[in-house]
Parts: sequence; C-alpha cells; structure tokens
Amino acid sequence: MAILVTNDDGIYAKGLYELVGALKAIGEVVIVAPDREQSAVGHSITLSSPLRVTKIYRNGDFYGYATSGTPADAVKLAIRSILSEVPELVVSGINLGANVGASLIYSGTVSAATEGCLMGVPSIAVSLDSRIGNHWKYAAEFAAWIAKMVLKKGLPKEILLNVNVPDLPPEEIKGVAVTSQGKTSFNDFFEERMDPRGQRYYWMCGTMVADDESEDHDVVALSNGYISVMPVHYDLTAYKYIPEFSKWNLNKAWKGNA
Amino acid sequence: MAILVTNDDGIYAKGLYELVGALKAIGEVVIVAPDREQSAVGHSITLSSPLRVTKIYRNGDFYGYATSGTPADAVKLAIRSILSEVPELVVSGINLGANVGASLIYSGTVSAATEGCLMGVPSIAVSLDSRIGNHWKYAAEFAAWIAKMVLKKGLPKEILLNVNVPDLPPEEIKGVAVTSQGKTSFNDFFEERMDPRGQRYYWMCGTMVADDESEDHDVVALSNGYISVMPVHYDLTAYKYIPEFSKWNLNKAWKGNA
Repeated sequence: MAILVTNDDGIYAKGLYELVGALKAIGEVVIVAPDREQSAVGHSITLSSPLRVTKIYRNGDFYGYATSGTPADAVKLAIRSILSEVPELVVSGINLGANVGASLIYSGTVSAATEGCLMGVPSIAVSLDSRIGNHWKYAAEFAAWIAKMVLKKGLPKEILLNVNVPDLPPEEIKGVAVTSQGKTSFNDFFEERMDPRGQRYYWMCGTMVADDESEDHDVVALSNGYISVMPVHYDLTAYKYIPEFSKWNLNKAWKGNA
Repeated sequence: MAILVTNDDGIYAKGLYELVGALKAIGEVVIVAPDREQSAVGHSITLSSPLRVTKIYRNGDFYGYATSGTPADAVKLAIRSILSEVPELVVSGINLGANVGASLIYSGTVSAATEGCLMGVPSIAVSLDSRIGNHWKYAAEFAAWIAKMVLKKGLPKEILLNVNVPDLPPEEIKGVAVTSQGKTSFNDFFEERMDPRGQRYYWMCGTMVADDESEDHDVVALSNGYISVMPVHYDLTAYKYIPEFSKWNLNKAWKGNA
C-alpha cells in the first residue's frame, strides 16, 4: 500500500520534492503529478482530449509519473490505471502559495485531494503561505506528521483535510489551529494591453482580501502564524437557506404559471 | 441594468441561444461566453496566459462577446471590463447535460454562476438533463421564470441557485423540487489506446452513479421527472466534523512532537 503524492505546480516543483522526502519516512511513496504548472485550474477534468503518462527520472533513478491534464486527472489516472493497488493515502502539494478562504474553489492542489476523497481514499492538501518558499522542510515535516496521524486515525468518508503552513522559521510558528473557511473577496481587475499586431488582450490581476477577523478562520489563523488545518467537504448544498427558500412555493407557483 | 448570460458549452451553443431568447422577455440581456466548449473545467481561472475578447455577430446583428478562457473568466471579464455597469443577474446555461450530485464540482456551468455570486451578483446555473436536447424551450421558459423571481425576491449573499430541468415534454414534468446535493460516485476508467506513432494514450470514460434514493436529492428528483432547484454555497468547511476533529488535539500533539 502506497502514499500517492501529487500537486498542481507540476512534477518538477520543489514543494513536491520536499513533501516526498518527508513522506518516505512513513511509507512507500508514488508520484503521479501534472507535467507542468496547473495553478487555479479548480476541479477540472479532461474529457475532450486524451491523456498521456510519461516516466520521469532524476539522477538516473525513476522519480514518478508525469501526466498531461489537471491535478484531478492525475489522481484519477493514478488510481484507475497507473497503480496496481488503491493507495492508502493521497497527499497533494506542497503548493507554493496559500489555499485559504474563497481561493479554495480555484485550487488545483485542493481539487487533487478532493478527487482522492471522491475515490474513497483519505486525502490531504498541503500549501505553504509564500510567494518564494523559504521553509519547505518544516511544512514537509508537518505534512508527514499529519499524514501519519490520518493513516492511524482515518478520516470520515467525504472529508479531506486542507493544510496551510506559514512560511516562517519554526520558532515563529504559534501552533496548529483547526479552522473554517474564511470570508474573502477578490479585488481583481484586468490590465488591458495591445499585442504587436495591434490586438487587445487582458491580464487578470488582483489579490484576495480578507473580509473578517475571526480567529476561527483559515485566513486569519494563517496570517497570525498558525498552521491551519481545515476539514473540507464537497457538499455544496446551502442547507441553512432551504427552509426560507421553500417558502417561495416554487412547485405551486410554477404550476400556476405554466 | 442588464442580465449577464454565459455558459460552458461556448457562445454558439443552442442552450445559450434559447436561454437568451427567453430572458429577453424580462430584461436587457448581454452575452459574454467562452469562445468554445469548456465542459468539466470546474472553477478554473486563467492566470498564466492573457485573455481575448471578440465581438460575435449573428445574421449581421451584434450577438455577444466571446472570451478565450473558462466560464469563470468570462464572468470576471464581463463584470470587471466589458460591461459598463454591474449586471443585476448572472444566468449560466442552458447546459447540455445535468449538473447534479458530485458532478457539481466539475461543472463549468455552475462555476460561472459561483463566480457571479462571489462578485456579489445574484446568480443562477441552468442545465438540461439530456445528451441531445429535445426540450430547450421549456427549460428556457422555466429559467426566465425563476430569473424573474430572483430579481424580485433577491438571493442571500453567498448563495446561488442550481437548476436542472428534465428533458421531457412539458406535460410529463411532475413539478418543481427544492433539493440538496445527491450522493453519487463515478465508475470511471481509462481506455488505453496506441497512437499512430506507437505511443500510449488514455481516454477518460465512465458515468456518474446515484448512490442513494432520497427524494430530497437533486439526482433523484430529476430522474423522477421534477425540475430540481438547489441552493448552492461555496463554504467548503465540514462543520459537522470539527468537534470530533478537534479531539485530535493537533496543537498540543504537534508541539510535543516538534
């Protein structure tokens, strides 16, 4: 039984390399990861073109399988075609850049873990809150530690873990917080440019803005120096709103209209 | 104030055309949609390449703006750059094929409406449960009807509606059900082939399987002949599991370990 490691920064990413190094201490590791960077792909899968798998070697040794397509594709391909047995754990990361607040829904790193979870395998997404990446080793150690814990304790069906680690020296990390998804918005805008042929094009710009200060939230915990661990589900039903919404009497109103 | 219409099947899709036709009866419509089919792109956005916008004409009249990139890109571009005012409603669809159960997380149609919602605009995703598309007109009429209702009653912040219509003659539609997300799994597999150069490639195959029979669920309501209307949020926190998970005492355990 193996630990499947994947990511959305591509198989050559430093974050994946460090993660694999740490996970080797707790089990057999198999890498199946996208052949290039796939950030902000959300939960994409590839239906309209076929997928390719390439064996990757590093210093003459077999390193892992590079897949065309998205992180979710990589996990599907790994479990359905590449691995001879279903892995006992999926770990996705370590992403360069936090995945907290509303940015979770754009995250290829989280989507890979969600795919693992959908396929019945306990799954963890791990991200480092950084644009550069100074403290990979610490984040990787934490990832291996919590992976070991998940292997021991299990996770409920349909629940995965989303881990975000501050990019700080270990002595500055305040601790570990169990969090919920923060309220955020995006101040995004498009920068308009002209190409050399006089045609207009647009670059998406902007950043995420934290809209609240609740210490229960991933965004806030992380910026306060805590490792954020959030249990994630993929049930998108807004249950809270169902009673109020039922008062719209859609069935009766539509029948009266139609 | 306009109604922004988008989709994931591309600006030339029949479902979008029918939707626009019906929505014109209730307000001014602006089309900003992907320039090609974008199914199963999930909530992708395009950060690594620039986006293009092209004006599309039909029979000599201006029809809408075609955007390179994903459905979520189209909504962002529309609201931030193309439209002079924030629209009062986003309607995404009509998708050819249902978006229910776990397939919601792969849906470009739903992701466009989610993006509208994230940007503070009431948003609706509409899909037709069909591989061919026989009864577009009925689905479009229902979409326009519920759109009018949403314009009148509003939607809570951070809630969008996901509508799925059976592809049946109107007299066979049983009614309208307010639903929650069904439990489903995918029996997916990869078909392995050889290209003409002897290189292996893989096609993703398989379908979604309904794992329960609760009539509250979108999958079941739809297959029983009901129009399914589900309130959707994008808070991925598994709140139910937080108390149990907190017993792991991660903070104390990690400090003891580190």
